Amino acid sequence: MTTTTAAYDELAATWTRLHRLGHLQSLAGWDQAANMPPKGNEARAAAMSEMAALLHRMVTEPKLADALARAEQEPLSDLQRANLREMRRQWRAANALPEALVQRQKMATSRCEHAWRTQRPANDWKGFVANFRAVLELAREEAALLSAQTGLTKYDALMDRYEPGMTGAQVDRVFGEVRQWLPGLIQKVVERQAREPARDPVGPFPLAAQRALCEQVIGLLGFDFQAGRLDVSTHPFCGGVPEDVRLTTRFREDDFLGSLMGTIHETGHGRYEQNLPRDWLGQPVAEARSMALHESQSLSFEMQLGSHPGFVNRLAPMIRTAFGDQPAFEAQNLHRLMTRVKRGLIRVDADEVTYPAHIILRYEIERPLIEGEIEPEDVPALWDAKMMELLGVDTRGNFTDGPLQDVHWPESLFGYFPCYSLGAMYAAQWFAAMRRAMPDLDERIGRGELTAVFDWLRDHIWSQGSRWTTDELALRASGEVLNPAHFKAHLEARYLD
Amino acid sequence: MTTTTAAYDELAATWTRLHRLGHLQSLAGWDQAANMPPKGNEARAAAMSEMAALLHRMVTEPKLADALARAEQEPLSDLQRANLREMRRQWRAANALPEALVQRQKMATSRCEHAWRTQRPANDWKGFVANFRAVLELAREEAALLSAQTGLTKYDALMDRYEPGMTGAQVDRVFGEVRQWLPGLIQKVVERQAREPARDPVGPFPLAAQRALCEQVIGLLGFDFQAGRLDVSTHPFCGGVPEDVRLTTRFREDDFLGSLMGTIHETGHGRYEQNLPRDWLGQPVAEARSMALHESQSLSFEMQLGSHPGFVNRLAPMIRTAFGDQPAFEAQNLHRLMTRVKRGLIRVDADEVTYPAHIILRYEIERPLIEGEIEPEDVPALWDAKMMELLGVDTRGNFTDGPLQDVHWPESLFGYFPCYSLGAMYAAQWFAAMRRAMPDLDERIGRGELTAVFDWLRDHIWSQGSRWTTDELALRASGEVLNPAHFKAHLEARYLD
Repeated sequence: MTTTTAAYDELAATWTRLHRLGHLQSLAGWDQAANMPPKGNEARAAAMSEMAALLHRMVTEPKLADALARAEQEPLSDLQRANLREMRRQWRAANALPEALVQRQKMATSRCEHAWRTQRPANDWKGFVANFRAVLELAREEAALLSAQTGLTKYDALMDRYEPGMTGAQVDRVFGEVRQWLPGLIQKVVERQAREPARDPVGPFPLAAQRALCEQVIGLLGFDFQAGRLDVSTHPFCGGVPEDVRLTTRFREDDFLGSLMGTIHETGHGRYEQNLPRDWLGQPVAEARSMALHESQSLSFEMQLGSHPGFVNRLAPMIRTAFGDQPAFEAQNLHRLMTRVKRGLIRVDADEVTYPAHIILRYEIERPLIEGEIEPEDVPALWDAKMMELLGVDTRGNFTDGPLQDVHWPESLFGYFPCYSLGAMYAAQWFAAMRRAMPDLDERIGRGELTAVFDWLRDHIWSQGSRWTTDELALRASGEVLNPAHFKAHLEARYLD
Repeated sequence: MTTTTAAYDELAATWTRLHRLGHLQSLAGWDQAANMPPKGNEARAAAMSEMAALLHRMVTEPKLADALARAEQEPLSDLQRANLREMRRQWRAANALPEALVQRQKMATSRCEHAWRTQRPANDWKGFVANFRAVLELAREEAALLSAQTGLTKYDALMDRYEPGMTGAQVDRVFGEVRQWLPGLIQKVVERQAREPARDPVGPFPLAAQRALCEQVIGLLGFDFQAGRLDVSTHPFCGGVPEDVRLTTRFREDDFLGSLMGTIHETGHGRYEQNLPRDWLGQPVAEARSMALHESQSLSFEMQLGSHPGFVNRLAPMIRTAFGDQPAFEAQNLHRLMTRVKRGLIRVDADEVTYPAHIILRYEIERPLIEGEIEPEDVPALWDAKMMELLGVDTRGNFTDGPLQDVHWPESLFGYFPCYSLGAMYAAQWFAAMRRAMPDLDERIGRGELTAVFDWLRDHIWSQGSRWTTDELALRASGEVLNPAHFKAHLEARYLD
């Protein structure tokens, strides 16, 4: 062990540069979605691709391998060591794949995704498979390479890109459990809600009033507008950088709830980013822990808090002020609208109760696809059977609203889907932990005292960045690793009590 | 001479990379002014400074010197040769100064500019000089270095950064001529306008209506909104990239004309950028020729066209539609408002008749400052004398609205000021050439047939990029190099006929 941290310092300087240049890349991506006029697209794509190549070259510089090895021998603090671990993880991911494979993947996904845009509305599964086969073959190749390097199974090696440390075995256990009770629970909720009709709000809802309402609610949720913005894009997202978070939403004149709840969702992502550990910004240890953890924040805001009956009581008068009074704006009715459960074909339109069914189905198909146990031809029959089994809906022949509905597979994002539902489960787990620490949490929320929620999330999640592995983080925050029982309890309490 | 263009191609690839990465830098600069929340500033500054250093490293890579030398020997087309000439110019500028000098300049200008922000309102000339002395010393050092390398005089070497090929001797000749007739012309115009009072519009003018009016006028002026945007910033500018031009303006509820004319000004810059030679975008030969040429486009739009009585006839009904009718919106009155001449203290508030007086004054002070013929202590007396001589206004003791009014000197932008008035003169020269080619030009403008104007500018200026030197460009476009007689004729025709 040496007595200086020269190698570590060199690495930290490299990551600071990556953070600074990544800032420009991230901003350009946000602008592309929120501002860019159509004819700017070609130049923007060229600029961002040049930058992506540059950032990639920086993480794959040969001298980093040596610096990482030397830094391991240096006298580092715990935080520095955690940072080094995350540096190595990013370095390994960037260096794992031969350039030729990366290029072929870019070509294949770009072709597949481009054709998918017209194949989806045309219900053209056969045409899709013709391109998708190449995407899948390359993903299997990638998975095999990553698996050989990491010792993980092929699917786990892909999932590790989004959810470090998560394994198919753990997902199997968790989803297997949910699978047991979910269809029955959905059935009970649907039956119960049939006896509790909700009244639809009557539009139009002027866009300026919707925007003002969203900004007011975001402010109430603690988003720092001195360090971020809200803009409009076709697909809402949370972009920018931790120092300047760019939320986006979309508005429809005939519906304000979708945009409001979507904005609350993005605010959860945004507050996570805005509250990552300041002193370490620019270093991997200061980045958000994982996709599921990020989703646990957006869903903490949208589902746990935003759809909480106490919070809806606070929202109701704000909604009346924004659009004028109408019977549908009564708090109980608003809550019913926000928690309406409906078995549907489309994942992105699903409520929090049926959503996991969509995810479990995709996981149960993409995992064997990657492991080589099934082929693209097998997907439709599996899709139909699982949709019937989990949600009781008939999807036969409807590829448009079936396996063609998501962009993830054409873009080769295998292993990403589970994060959505793992996030919902973590969110329920965080609120269960909060309730143990603060037995009057629900009353506090009802009184609009949200600081307790934010403080807990800041202390246990946001400020921790990537200091711990996800399991360690969950254990420290809630006393246990991921436990889907809290999600079940949350659904039962909200939908069946 | 070799038979391949390998070295040239290598250079072209480098400049394509510079263009692509510069795209991100330019976008970040625009966002900083138009969108960025205050707490984002530190991270943005770090990101942009990282990128500036990266771009600088790319242009100063040692291997470029050799590639430039080899490319000279290659069988290049005329356009490639012009491109190589511009590459060498940019390369020379980037490599001319030792890194230590650049760093010291950054420090000195940053300190001077920062203090100036409070010294200006405090009328603190003495405090300003304490910092400005260092800025000036370093600028003289820079000028001496550049002069030794180029054979230009010290001031010319600095001016060459903004206006390649322009010399103090030429500016002396041009400004010397203007100096002869300008004070007398101003006197005549002021006397005449005293007999032609203008009626002031009565506000408020709602911002949404102002924005809609601006967008309508910009559209009429041919700005391509599919390849650009209009946003709001404190200091209006034209930013972005040729493929995606970002105009900004600012709105005041009590005045719409300032914002409207400012927007028309930026539209001139914007159309130049949007119509630079497409096939060569990314190469220096496809960049705008110079600062004066750029200003000749914004002033062609704002002054030659925007304040043209025929164009004002087209504007009047649009203004009435935007804000409702009022007597001040009668076309002749609007024209009077737009062409009101007033001797004032402030350059940025000056009309097109008195503006050159402000520029001549600055040129006559900054040139001897750089050449070492005078010192900062000499500035106030010179300023007072020249303001009296050129504009007949008394500025004694008023530093705030005197030599402290501009950011250019604290930022060491010596040699920039002349470009503003050279641009106004070129603009008059272009319209004189247009009138020779199209004797009915003024009637066409009155009928709203602006295509003839745009086509002429596209053919003679925009599409030429940096293919020719400025003198060659002017000669090809108008049959002569810069000739201030056209500017005089323009002012006489508009203000005294």
